[in-house]
Amino acid sequence: MTTNFRSDNETPVAAAIMDAILEANQGTAWAYADDKWSTKLDQVFSDLFRTEAIVLPVSTGTVANSIALATVTPPWGSVFCHSGAHIQNDECGAPEFFGNGMRLVPVDGEQAKLTPSALEKAINANEGHGVHSYKPTSLSLTQATEGGTVYSPDEVRALCDSAHGLGMNTHMDGARFGNAIASLGCHPAEVTVEAGIDMLSFGASKNGCMAAEALVIFGQPQWRETAERLRKRSGHLLSKMRYVSAQLLAYIEDDRWLKMASHANRQAAKFAKAIENHAEASLEYPVQANEVFMKWTMEGFDQLKSQGIQFEVWPGRNDLARFVFAHSTSDEETDILVNCMR
Amino acid sequence: MTTNFRSDNETPVAAAIMDAILEANQGTAWAYADDKWSTKLDQVFSDLFRTEAIVLPVSTGTVANSIALATVTPPWGSVFCHSGAHIQNDECGAPEFFGNGMRLVPVDGEQAKLTPSALEKAINANEGHGVHSYKPTSLSLTQATEGGTVYSPDEVRALCDSAHGLGMNTHMDGARFGNAIASLGCHPAEVTVEAGIDMLSFGASKNGCMAAEALVIFGQPQWRETAERLRKRSGHLLSKMRYVSAQLLAYIEDDRWLKMASHANRQAAKFAKAIENHAEASLEYPVQANEVFMKWTMEGFDQLKSQGIQFEVWPGRNDLARFVFAHSTSDEETDILVNCMR
Amino acid sequence: MTTNFRSDNETPVAAAIMDAILEANQGTAWAYADDKWSTKLDQVFSDLFRTEAIVLPVSTGTVANSIALATVTPPWGSVFCHSGAHIQNDECGAPEFFGNGMRLVPVDGEQAKLTPSALEKAINANEGHGVHSYKPTSLSLTQATEGGTVYSPDEVRALCDSAHGLGMNTHMDGARFGNAIASLGCHPAEVTVEAGIDMLSFGASKNGCMAAEALVIFGQPQWRETAERLRKRSGHLLSKMRYVSAQLLAYIEDDRWLKMASHANRQAAKFAKAIENHAEASLEYPVQANEVFMKWTMEGFDQLKSQGIQFEVWPGRNDLARFVFAHSTSDEETDILVNCMR
Amino acid sequence: MTTNFRSDNETPVAAAIMDAILEANQGTAWAYADDKWSTKLDQVFSDLFRTEAIVLPVSTGTVANSIALATVTPPWGSVFCHSGAHIQNDECGAPEFFGNGMRLVPVDGEQAKLTPSALEKAINANEGHGVHSYKPTSLSLTQATEGGTVYSPDEVRALCDSAHGLGMNTHMDGARFGNAIASLGCHPAEVTVEAGIDMLSFGASKNGCMAAEALVIFGQPQWRETAERLRKRSGHLLSKMRYVSAQLLAYIEDDRWLKMASHANRQAAKFAKAIENHAEASLEYPVQANEVFMKWTMEGFDQLKSQGIQFEVWPGRNDLARFVFAHSTSDEETDILVNCMR
Repeated sequence: MTTNFRSDNETPVAAAIMDAILEANQGTAWAYADDKWSTKLDQVFSDLFRTEAIVLPVSTGTVANSIALATVTPPWGSVFCHSGAHIQNDECGAPEFFGNGMRLVPVDGEQAKLTPSALEKAINANEGHGVHSYKPTSLSLTQATEGGTVYSPDEVRALCDSAHGLGMNTHMDGARFGNAIASLGCHPAEVTVEAGIDMLSFGASKNGCMAAEALVIFGQPQWRETAERLRKRSGHLLSKMRYVSAQLLAYIEDDRWLKMASHANRQAAKFAKAIENHAEASLEYPVQANEVFMKWTMEGFDQLKSQGIQFEVWPGRNDLARFVFAHSTSDEETDILVNCMR
Repeated sequence: MTTNFRSDNETPVAAAIMDAILEANQGTAWAYADDKWSTKLDQVFSDLFRTEAIVLPVSTGTVANSIALATVTPPWGSVFCHSGAHIQNDECGAPEFFGNGMRLVPVDGEQAKLTPSALEKAINANEGHGVHSYKPTSLSLTQATEGGTVYSPDEVRALCDSAHGLGMNTHMDGARFGNAIASLGCHPAEVTVEAGIDMLSFGASKNGCMAAEALVIFGQPQWRETAERLRKRSGHLLSKMRYVSAQLLAYIEDDRWLKMASHANRQAAKFAKAIENHAEASLEYPVQANEVFMKWTMEGFDQLKSQGIQFEVWPGRNDLARFVFAHSTSDEETDILVNCMR
Repeated sequence: MTTNFRSDNETPVAAAIMDAILEANQGTAWAYADDKWSTKLDQVFSDLFRTEAIVLPVSTGTVANSIALATVTPPWGSVFCHSGAHIQNDECGAPEFFGNGMRLVPVDGEQAKLTPSALEKAINANEGHGVHSYKPTSLSLTQATEGGTVYSPDEVRALCDSAHGLGMNTHMDGARFGNAIASLGCHPAEVTVEAGIDMLSFGASKNGCMAAEALVIFGQPQWRETAERLRKRSGHLLSKMRYVSAQLLAYIEDDRWLKMASHANRQAAKFAKAIENHAEASLEYPVQANEVFMKWTMEGFDQLKSQGIQFEVWPGRNDLARFVFAHSTSDEETDILVNCMR
Repeated sequence: MTTNFRSDNETPVAAAIMDAILEANQGTAWAYADDKWSTKLDQVFSDLFRTEAIVLPVSTGTVANSIALATVTPPWGSVFCHSGAHIQNDECGAPEFFGNGMRLVPVDGEQAKLTPSALEKAINANEGHGVHSYKPTSLSLTQATEGGTVYSPDEVRALCDSAHGLGMNTHMDGARFGNAIASLGCHPAEVTVEAGIDMLSFGASKNGCMAAEALVIFGQPQWRETAERLRKRSGHLLSKMRYVSAQLLAYIEDDRWLKMASHANRQAAKFAKAIENHAEASLEYPVQANEVFMKWTMEGFDQLKSQGIQFEVWPGRNDLARFVFAHSTSDEETDILVNCMR
């Protein structure tokens, strides 16, 4: 019994997704995304999001984010994001590389979320003086956030309204988008395109796929060429794209993505409850998706580790640890963890 | 019965490779290439090439080529390659993007091959005048070539000697490296590191894998950081890298890569023989690997197409067509094609 | 008596230009091109070219060329130019740097000129296959050419028509634009905007200024922001831009630029005549501006050098030398040279 | 009588500097910094800084800063600077452009200065986790600071020690370096190379020159090629570099740079005293160089403006204004200003 709560990046591929890969492995197929799986994606995602969508299948969230931001942001443009965002802290400057030196502006915010007032204040402080300064161009939100919290449709709309009001574009890093939707219980369009999001990095790898993400552009057909050129030019146009696209199709079919995400969220909720009932440990953030940030002591963490529980003590903090639950986390594993907290 | 000779990019994944993927799909594994498959690669390739090797698994040949060249070439450096090279014609400037505006210098050569004299002449013509010109920095050879021919170890050594003599670095684009080795019958080290190649894009996707290539750096530990940073920064460090690495391990194991390549080469040879015996059609290049370039007429090509044969009439030429044979090409398929030429 | 015919880059600043600099040196002035000299440029050049023009004063031709090309060419776009062009051979990849890895495609042509047929053939050979290839985007002509020849308005128009017909943009590198106009005797608009040129690097440094060039954009107000951002971002927005702009204004005033260029051209013509009358030496190109390319022997060149004549034996050629005449070349100097050829 | 205290960027060229330009304007000279003025710079600056120096004359501080930082910082490296630094706020991302997407990390600090503890805290918070994060690579200090304060040699040494201790490189943006040295009264080497600075942007344009700055590299001959390539590639290698170099030589000769800076500092001190004696106005920072930041009311500022005083109300602040004094500020002008404060 492995009890690994380190990261949903470490999980295996779900059976249904692997079946789709195997099924796609029959005979030859057109290369470079001209196959029958890849060419279906625009329609499938347009249906899913109730709006005309352009979809680029890719292998990582980093490239989806980077292409999205570089498609709409000039080299002298800036992207505003939460100071804990993956694009800011975990991508080694991929957005800056794709965007030829564009700049990310990190903004602080409670519960790993941005607020319109903090955003507007940051934009004002950075809009500078004409040609001498970066030009505020894009907003990037993370959903679910890096703290395991979830923006409501109203919260997203308020932020997008601020950004659009200033002529900026909006992007959502949805590495854990399924977990967010499963948590909100809303239609996926409600918290994206209908709330003002222009582009979505629709994550699937963390929630049951192998290496499959979709960059979804809502409307804006004029952005297609740039996005496609950036994908090719960065080495991300797989010759055998069918295997990525087949994953994405199977992931969406029958609401598999939401079922897997709901399962993960439920496991997280069970652990959250155990923490709430614990004498010493406490929650750093409200648990709204599949991640739990527990405040406790190094003694407490060591004790858990000694019982075979795998998780990450947060870098730079010795009173905080992260536990991630996934599609593949069994009830039994969660029970073991919960019991450790008794 | 599909009789598709358009491209080895269109072929399915070989059964043994898919088995390896399935086998890697057990439980959790460390993310970002810290898994037990990825961490084995350095040793496995060091053994394969009889020298200490650094291996970066990646998903496409384009990114392997681009990282290799950008690792050793400054933005003001130039890379010399054949005018038909993939990096020159088919990667939308990925090397230039990774290399921040470095330049490719295309050099003509018979049978899709470079010669030392043509190379040296091109270098002389481009080395210019100090800071005003690009600095000749790298040589990139394609093996097997874009014409389906193969460089001998001696040919590679002569070219690498020329390059090294001028202080340049050497790279081999081995998108069809297996086919080249199967053709040469030599040890893979003989035509690479032992002939003076510093870096190899070891292709596997065209020869039975799904999306798996290895950037192999021979010696030169000081190049590791740059190569790894470029991989991360371009969005190519997969969180679930185990699935790529497992493919590569299975590909090498039991000489699978050579067996599959040999099979493909044999099919090509059968078709080449048919062309040689044909009254009108003829070979554009000697057939030494898994590609056949046939000179004929549009009438001839149309006739083949009407019989269900799929292949590519070469862009800009109406007297030339390419037929690619692969690990998955059945004897039956080749026989159908051969019979069409009778 | 110096008899230096090496390069017009080595010449001093003309007296009238220096006077303008001194005159601009009174009191304070708004920084960053908001001064009264810089803000006059749009109108002065609009008048000069009989069309609405956007003008960016800069310090070098390299940056004028690079901003022009990078303003209209995406990173995956290609620029077609003569294989002898300065942007191709003498700018260490500045266009590629400003253009984030865009590509130059050199095209051969007699007398250092492009022809529509050679251009179209090159474009056809490079337009490739969609997202896999660079996209032909721009044409760059050099006027006067690197061979000292001059395109007629009809020649420029034919090339621009070819480019525009393919949806491409057109740029003229006018490092020696004054010499070209002095040679043609036409209106400067006739061989630029009225012949289909979209952007001009209007050179002044070689013809009497200190470090002053103007990037002139004809029409196209939507290109202004990108051009101005690139200028700032590359460190070329001088705080004390007035000194550059004052040069440009004085250069144009009273046709000084044409008078200086005519003087230089006349000196070149005298030397050309001497070569035509020489028993052994001959002209490599027709002499139409201020440069003379003389074919002769190393013995001949050495003899000239022994008489104190300074000039450049052409790199890679021992039978060719270049002599450049400038605004500051005195009749006496030219006579000395001419006498050496008797 | 102009009473313009807006910026030292708006001042004219000092007479002695203009004389040097005129003197350099005799006859022809080798182009591209091979002239007799430019080739003297290494020695002159080596003498000035008591250490072997490599000097690149350039036209702007932005390009000096950008080349310096991009020479030592890889694209995945980060540069730590004060949050008010010119490179962070006023260069439209030039460092990021030259550095191909490297990142600036702004750090807060009192009196516009960094402290070792704030620096180390920022580095710790940003050094992240291996390949996923930017790598802290460089420190950039501004001297005099953007607040008109000056780092002492000890302060510089402490910061450089912190940076070097972490394997980082150090740069000083000396746009107002003369004012700092005039204020400190120390040897210029004491607060630069002898305090641990690796590279200095030695500013001259704000203090009497036309468009002349020197990038000074202390020791480190291996950095020369990259720095020179970046200068050429960014269009900053002037063909007639003699005019820049002649300014720099005249600027240093006879301590002109220090005399001019001292004059400017004295004017600032007079105004500072007037503020200290004022009932309502006060100083935002101690006045240690040639800039005075005065806190007051919009009413106060408007009153000054109505008396013909020109200055800048600080962006985003209506209680703060900046007054800059320069080599060209006359005692009379300062008296007028001072009298306005009575």
